[in-house]
Amino acid sequence: MKPNDMLLHPLDMAVAPEPELLCIFGTGDLGRSLGLRLLQSGYRVVYGSRRPSNCGPLPLGAQVMTHAAAAQSASLIFICVHRDHYEFLEPMAHHLQGKVLVDLSNNLKKNMYPEANAAYLQRLVPKSFVVKGLNTLSAWALQNGLLAGKQVYLCGDNTEAKQAVAQMATKLGLTVLDKGSLSAARELEDFPLKLFPEWRLPLSIAVGLTAFFFFYLLVRDVIYAYVENSSDISYRNIISLANKVFPIVALVMLSLCYLPGAIAAFLQLYRGTKYRRFPNWLDRWMLCRKQLGLIALGCAFLHAIYTFIIPIRYNVRRKLISDALNEMKDNKTTPLYFDNTEAWGTDSFLALGILGFFLFVLLGLTSLPSVGGTLSWREFSFIQSKLGHLTLFICTAHGYIYGWNKFLRPTTYKWYTPPGYMLCLIVPSVVLVLKLLLLLPCVDRTLTRIRQGWERTQPREKMDEIKATNL
Amino acid sequence: MKPNDMLLHPLDMAVAPEPELLCIFGTGDLGRSLGLRLLQSGYRVVYGSRRPSNCGPLPLGAQVMTHAAAAQSASLIFICVHRDHYEFLEPMAHHLQGKVLVDLSNNLKKNMYPEANAAYLQRLVPKSFVVKGLNTLSAWALQNGLLAGKQVYLCGDNTEAKQAVAQMATKLGLTVLDKGSLSAARELEDFPLKLFPEWRLPLSIAVGLTAFFFFYLLVRDVIYAYVENSSDISYRNIISLANKVFPIVALVMLSLCYLPGAIAAFLQLYRGTKYRRFPNWLDRWMLCRKQLGLIALGCAFLHAIYTFIIPIRYNVRRKLISDALNEMKDNKTTPLYFDNTEAWGTDSFLALGILGFFLFVLLGLTSLPSVGGTLSWREFSFIQSKLGHLTLFICTAHGYIYGWNKFLRPTTYKWYTPPGYMLCLIVPSVVLVLKLLLLLPCVDRTLTRIRQGWERTQPREKMDEIKATNL
Amino acid sequence: MKPNDMLLHPLDMAVAPEPELLCIFGTGDLGRSLGLRLLQSGYRVVYGSRRPSNCGPLPLGAQVMTHAAAAQSASLIFICVHRDHYEFLEPMAHHLQGKVLVDLSNNLKKNMYPEANAAYLQRLVPKSFVVKGLNTLSAWALQNGLLAGKQVYLCGDNTEAKQAVAQMATKLGLTVLDKGSLSAARELEDFPLKLFPEWRLPLSIAVGLTAFFFFYLLVRDVIYAYVENSSDISYRNIISLANKVFPIVALVMLSLCYLPGAIAAFLQLYRGTKYRRFPNWLDRWMLCRKQLGLIALGCAFLHAIYTFIIPIRYNVRRKLISDALNEMKDNKTTPLYFDNTEAWGTDSFLALGILGFFLFVLLGLTSLPSVGGTLSWREFSFIQSKLGHLTLFICTAHGYIYGWNKFLRPTTYKWYTPPGYMLCLIVPSVVLVLKLLLLLPCVDRTLTRIRQGWERTQPREKMDEIKATNL
Repeated sequence: MKPNDMLLHPLDMAVAPEPELLCIFGTGDLGRSLGLRLLQSGYRVVYGSRRPSNCGPLPLGAQVMTHAAAAQSASLIFICVHRDHYEFLEPMAHHLQGKVLVDLSNNLKKNMYPEANAAYLQRLVPKSFVVKGLNTLSAWALQNGLLAGKQVYLCGDNTEAKQAVAQMATKLGLTVLDKGSLSAARELEDFPLKLFPEWRLPLSIAVGLTAFFFFYLLVRDVIYAYVENSSDISYRNIISLANKVFPIVALVMLSLCYLPGAIAAFLQLYRGTKYRRFPNWLDRWMLCRKQLGLIALGCAFLHAIYTFIIPIRYNVRRKLISDALNEMKDNKTTPLYFDNTEAWGTDSFLALGILGFFLFVLLGLTSLPSVGGTLSWREFSFIQSKLGHLTLFICTAHGYIYGWNKFLRPTTYKWYTPPGYMLCLIVPSVVLVLKLLLLLPCVDRTLTRIRQGWERTQPREKMDEIKATNL
Repeated sequence: MKPNDMLLHPLDMAVAPEPELLCIFGTGDLGRSLGLRLLQSGYRVVYGSRRPSNCGPLPLGAQVMTHAAAAQSASLIFICVHRDHYEFLEPMAHHLQGKVLVDLSNNLKKNMYPEANAAYLQRLVPKSFVVKGLNTLSAWALQNGLLAGKQVYLCGDNTEAKQAVAQMATKLGLTVLDKGSLSAARELEDFPLKLFPEWRLPLSIAVGLTAFFFFYLLVRDVIYAYVENSSDISYRNIISLANKVFPIVALVMLSLCYLPGAIAAFLQLYRGTKYRRFPNWLDRWMLCRKQLGLIALGCAFLHAIYTFIIPIRYNVRRKLISDALNEMKDNKTTPLYFDNTEAWGTDSFLALGILGFFLFVLLGLTSLPSVGGTLSWREFSFIQSKLGHLTLFICTAHGYIYGWNKFLRPTTYKWYTPPGYMLCLIVPSVVLVLKLLLLLPCVDRTLTRIRQGWERTQPREKMDEIKATNL
Repeated sequence: MKPNDMLLHPLDMAVAPEPELLCIFGTGDLGRSLGLRLLQSGYRVVYGSRRPSNCGPLPLGAQVMTHAAAAQSASLIFICVHRDHYEFLEPMAHHLQGKVLVDLSNNLKKNMYPEANAAYLQRLVPKSFVVKGLNTLSAWALQNGLLAGKQVYLCGDNTEAKQAVAQMATKLGLTVLDKGSLSAARELEDFPLKLFPEWRLPLSIAVGLTAFFFFYLLVRDVIYAYVENSSDISYRNIISLANKVFPIVALVMLSLCYLPGAIAAFLQLYRGTKYRRFPNWLDRWMLCRKQLGLIALGCAFLHAIYTFIIPIRYNVRRKLISDALNEMKDNKTTPLYFDNTEAWGTDSFLALGILGFFLFVLLGLTSLPSVGGTLSWREFSFIQSKLGHLTLFICTAHGYIYGWNKFLRPTTYKWYTPPGYMLCLIVPSVVLVLKLLLLLPCVDRTLTRIRQGWERTQPREKMDEIKATNL
């Protein structure tokens, strides 16, 4: 042995050893797909079957034996059998002693059984090492090799057993996350059943806001016109109304993204410490800011498209022709009267909208996992905080300019109700004022000190010192 | 040793050992870039060169020796030499005995040589452990450290040799996928030569459909107008025609995405089992659904932009002015005649188009690897199946409303041919009807049972039982 | 032991061992969040604190001891303490001997201290193994488990110590990149402070170009109109001018993306070898091509939206009405005069713009890390080179058609200055001509040979031969 190859284990085995043998119990769809994939990754595979001679087509190169024989030949066994049939494993517990059993089973709905499938399995064969995991893989994905980069979760009580499974999964191209002991098995089994849990609250808020503003504007615009002027403008429901509701919801939800941060800062200022937990509702709110922002972006996107197609609409084209005819009758001489203030107003309004939408799309792009993952913490917070508040400011300004010459007009307040854009400006304005207060030098200084560990009430000098020491 | 640090190996070596030494044969671009990267990742590097004293600039800190001396000092050797020159390794086979040789070579085209480069290398030095891999890395990417998260493939007959290479690659920030034994080497060598193989079929379909509908509409619109009315509207080729062709292709390709799923379901219903393979063409079709969908999204995106710029076009502006002049002559009195049905029709048409496009963009976003990878199976299937069929339904409705009052007009059927939008509604309508049939409770129940392993024809009771047991 | 499970270590420990114990010094925010995460990943955690009996709330399940006792019980210790307080570790150096110390500290600004925090730590406790790393994680991300797939960097002088930390980090779901010896610690400590360093140069270029063209066009359009015709068209600043500046900047920056490649190719042709380094400015330029392209895409996106909202603008609507009135007075008879050439011109102009934008968006999508990472080298270079130059060609043609009938009109040259679109066509035209020259068969052949290692000046035959041999 030369001195230099000390660290790389010498590979002096003259004969290349046989590849590792893995066992699969169950010859169903999942079992066969998993076997195929394992064979393609260079493993040898043996199936355990109740009737080895008669179990349908299996991947080329795989052996098939009785359960007991298959179990003896390998030390890692995949259990691709429905939970309802696990009891057949109990009689062969001695064959499974010291083996790693991977439980891949899922249930059709939550809480079908009193205990997790993997816990039940471990109870049946207490001397085996049960690892729950890989249950998020579908037979389809396995068959077609669509595994690269997929995240899978593992849990189990035995570290070495988990490592053996993790190593195998890594070889298949999977990314493995360890979720701790077997008590996490129920969480893993519920995982494939979950349907956007973190989107529920933000979506409910969005639907609620949309419904409220839709009916509010329906009454104010369409029903008001019908009652007061007997004119039927019900066609406006489809696009004009939607194009008022979506920007309103987008702006409100964007400001709801930044409101909890401001509330948290004021709470810390009021308490004079950062060492007390936020109330639960605030924590929950802060955790769904990303979803709130993305739904707001969706609404802003719809608003943009609705705006782009305005000039194609039948009523807009008729309106333009009607304007031309009116001009013709009133004012036979060109050049036409041109209102410079109006031109400045509409152009500023549109330019702010475009800029706000552009920044909003940028914010959305950085929330893509593959983009956000490459940012440093300072870059991420620069984009999400500085750029985010700028976006909110620009979009709020867009809203104010929309109503610039309508605030004082009495006709704006149909049936004594304020128009929708006024209502929707309340929350963003509050958020911006709060943020402005937080940026005042004196407030900002105190907040920075609090966030670095300083506390206003220091009953014990030492206590404070300890905290200032720690990261 | 305290009882608690049992699992973490005690680090009681008083002197930190030297970092591992790796050897690189060949001082070309790739060899030098690889050496630079290895040095930066904390390895020591020695180059093997025919003329160690005269081989051009090498990365700072690397040694250079003769091939034989370099080979002896390390146990992992990168072969950065053209395949044509591999024979120089044969005489020094005894120096390479038991070493891991990494073959990084690529060929300029497929099937240049009768056997894979790595297989040829293994034949020359049978007592070394050849690992094929890393051949997808470019010298440029290595030099500039653009490796993080890149996937690389490995194959080789010796598991430990592969593990040693995989460990090294992981330290460089690469993600390693094991492709099995050395017989996969040719596949790996062909990999850098492949050019969107999975996009070929969908792109051909898209090009074919585009060409067909373009000529069909060219004849019906432009040539018809020229022949029958002698009017030259050839300028329409550029935008008006394109804005008819793109939505047609988008809709047809979107429905082609969902057709194979429906066919597969009916095939399973007809056969009464899921245990028979689908015909090859269906398998191939199902595997390119993602590409079909993304091309359809591209066409829909083009359709959207073409629509947005409609009012800027010269002919549209002239048309509007001409409409105003006509109104002026026919109808001197305002208010203008306003067709409420027309307003409802065009607004619904536009609103459905916008909604369909929005959902389509959502579908496209979830097909981004970094977004789709974070979804659970149920979430993914919810989006791709439920949301996908909803998108198809809305887009088809968009098409039907486009033609709502034109279906019965005789002038629609120029030269007795149906207009393009009628042709393009056929496939989506068929898909939607099939899907509707599959959603009927009786059909859905049977299909669900079949997919859970039930078979209609059960020659042997036992056979069925086995299958129902397995996942 | 059966012969087949040779490779998987037999798991014959009857009792599952206790999970590994890790130690954390410091009970601040970061320390507590890290402990919580480690406990959730199945580790046991012990805190080292100056006052174990009085250190605030800690995660459930964690122990707390004095620093010395905690240090003795584990072999991996996280130092979650401010650098200013590191000296307390010096007296207990003997307790820390042979232990792995993970330095997670960051500084508030660059170069606050003469040496890196980790180097200072290593100097205090020379017999411990200091590993710098994980310092990019925030307490917030740790608490909320937002770690999956995040990249973290490690450096340290001891390989086994780094491996132990890397293994732990991998279990938390992090992706670990080894940055070599402890001398890289300063780089790691500066990492969380960096703010888009690679975007600085491209952004400066973009801002410079935007400012120049904005003032140039302001003078030519608005001030010229005010001086010569005394007409106030200042409202144009907001949208019309912006919609001229953004496409100009987009086109110039897109061509700046492809210029360095062409310069590099001509430099290689001129030198007759690829074995000499490019000048520094060219290297730097080539490394920021991606950022140049993405900023160009941003400008093109703004240009597209500005174009879509043109017909909604007040002045555009007034212009249309005014046109209709003029037509009315001049030309009482319909059909209106229709200029077929004008229709062809504007439609081609728009169609090229749309196509260019579409291809540009495709280029942008492939630069997303998760999309680009799945492409083979040939696919990536196909898209970025072939598709990129096609995009540049189409966008340049879009610019030429914009000015097609204005080049020879004297009124175009207000105050003897060329319009903005002429200026902006210079760089793209140069790039396209250079690219065309490089595509000439004789030039292309020479360049290909140079890139395969051939050299024009071959003082020694052998030298060349060596190079042609290597990859």
